[in-house]
Formats: sequence, structure tokens, C-alpha cells
Amino acid sequence: MEGEPTRVMMGVNESTIKGYPHASISSRGAFEWTLQKIVRSNTSGFKLLFLHVQAPDEDGFDDMDSVYASPDDFKSLKQRDKARGIHLLECFVNRCHEIGVQCEAWIKKGDPKEVICHEVKRVRPDLLVVGSSINREPAPVESP
Amino acid sequence: MEGEPTRVMMGVNESTIKGYPHASISSRGAFEWTLQKIVRSNTSGFKLLFLHVQAPDEDGFDDMDSVYASPDDFKSLKQRDKARGIHLLECFVNRCHEIGVQCEAWIKKGDPKEVICHEVKRVRPDLLVVGSSINREPAPVESP
Repeated sequence: MEGEPTRVMMGVNESTIKGYPHASISSRGAFEWTLQKIVRSNTSGFKLLFLHVQAPDEDGFDDMDSVYASPDDFKSLKQRDKARGIHLLECFVNRCHEIGVQCEAWIKKGDPKEVICHEVKRVRPDLLVVGSSINREPAPVESP
Repeated sequence: MEGEPTRVMMGVNESTIKGYPHASISSRGAFEWTLQKIVRSNTSGFKLLFLHVQAPDEDGFDDMDSVYASPDDFKSLKQRDKARGIHLLECFVNRCHEIGVQCEAWIKKGDPKEVICHEVKRVRPDLLVVGSSINREPAPVESP
């Protein structure tokens, strides 16, 4: 029943209180929920895909299409590029490597809702996990 | 990272073409999707909760609050009660026992959408899987 890992895409964003590189409570909640409830002990059965969407700004940050798949990928980056969203993703990627779950992470610019929908159609994950700090209801899933 | 199994609730219904006891294509799809993409090889990490909602009718079928958790539970039922929805659930329960996944199954009467929402609030599963024969998009999940 194994084979290709189940690909779980997750939208993550920065803390509105602490700012970068801290992840929002809902992002951390979604990540921990996915590990505890879906991945559980089956770390080789899943691949996590972290998408961070940034609203366009004027700081010249333009390294939007790189893929970061291991802690080493971050070390070779220039100091400029390490700022902001990349640090955010680094935390999730490092955590995945610690526990032995495959992952990828990338940044896109634009409206989060639109970009997430666009990326879901492009990447076609098996599951999309979206954090919520509003309610504690169980997660609804619609199978394909 | 183990502990209590992740409880996955699943609404299942009968085939509109073949009728009882055959499950609908979307129910079977949701079940197989859950096994392949979520449970995978970790059969002890999950418990499946099958809910079948029947619209109220006039045939006097009133055994609505029993819980069926193993094939034996079905054998002791009177012939009358074996009809219809129970046979539908039996297929899913038997399949779970074959592959070693814990499960429960029950029937409720009413409007499926309303009853499913009510049962989600009552049972509080970690995940609700709803079949769809309309689209093949990936499954959206909102973590608690």
C-alpha cells in the first residue's frame, strides 16, 4: 500500500505579532496537526510542500522561484535573500529534516488565496492543509 | 508520535444505479482514497467512522442508533434489520477488518448534509472525508 508518498501542501505565513522569521500560530498549528494526525509515525509515507505567499512590496526581493529542499540550500544563499520569507520556510524545512519527512518549500508573490489556488492546480498535491485560528472544528476533506 | 488513533469520519451512501447494498462510486472512491493517501501502511494509526444517512421513509426501519464494530455484530441481527443500509455498512466494516483498520459504522435518518454536520459536532472526528464524483481536484483540509 506504499509507493509514492502522499503529497501534502501547506500554506504558511509569518506571525502577525512577532513578524519574520516566526511562523503564525495557525501555520504552526497546521504543521503540528499534519504531523500528529496525518503523518503520525509514517514519516516516509508523506512529503510536505510548504508554500509561503507574500504580498508584492518594494524591497526588491525577487528570488521567488527557487526551491529549498534541505538545510544546505539555505546556507548558500546570500545574506540579502535570507531575509524574511526564506527564514520562515527554513524553520519548517529544518524541522522536517529533523524528523525525517521529505519536503519542499517555495515563495510566491501575490494574493494568498489566488496564489494558493493557482499553486494547487499547478502542483496537484493529494491534500491541501490550511491553518485556521478561528475555530477548532475538525478538518473537512473532499476526496478526489 | 503515536498514541490515540486519528479518527476519520466518512459519509457513505448507496449506489444510485445498483442500489443497496452497493456503495456509490463516490463513497468507494473516498474510502480507497483514505486508505491509499492517509492510512497508507499505518493501519494501527487510524480509526474509520462510517456514517450512512438515510432519508426518512415509511418501511418501519427503526434500528437507527446501533453501532456495528465487527462482522459478528451483523450476524446476530434479524433478517429485517440486515436489509438496506446495514448491508452497505457491512461491506466497509468487513473491508476494514480484512486490512486491520479499526472502525465503527452507524446509520442516521434525516437530511444528509444536516445529519453529517450534526454528527461531526457530536463525534468530533479529526478528519471528515466526503466523497465527490464531480471533480478530481485535491482534497482541501482546514486544520483545527
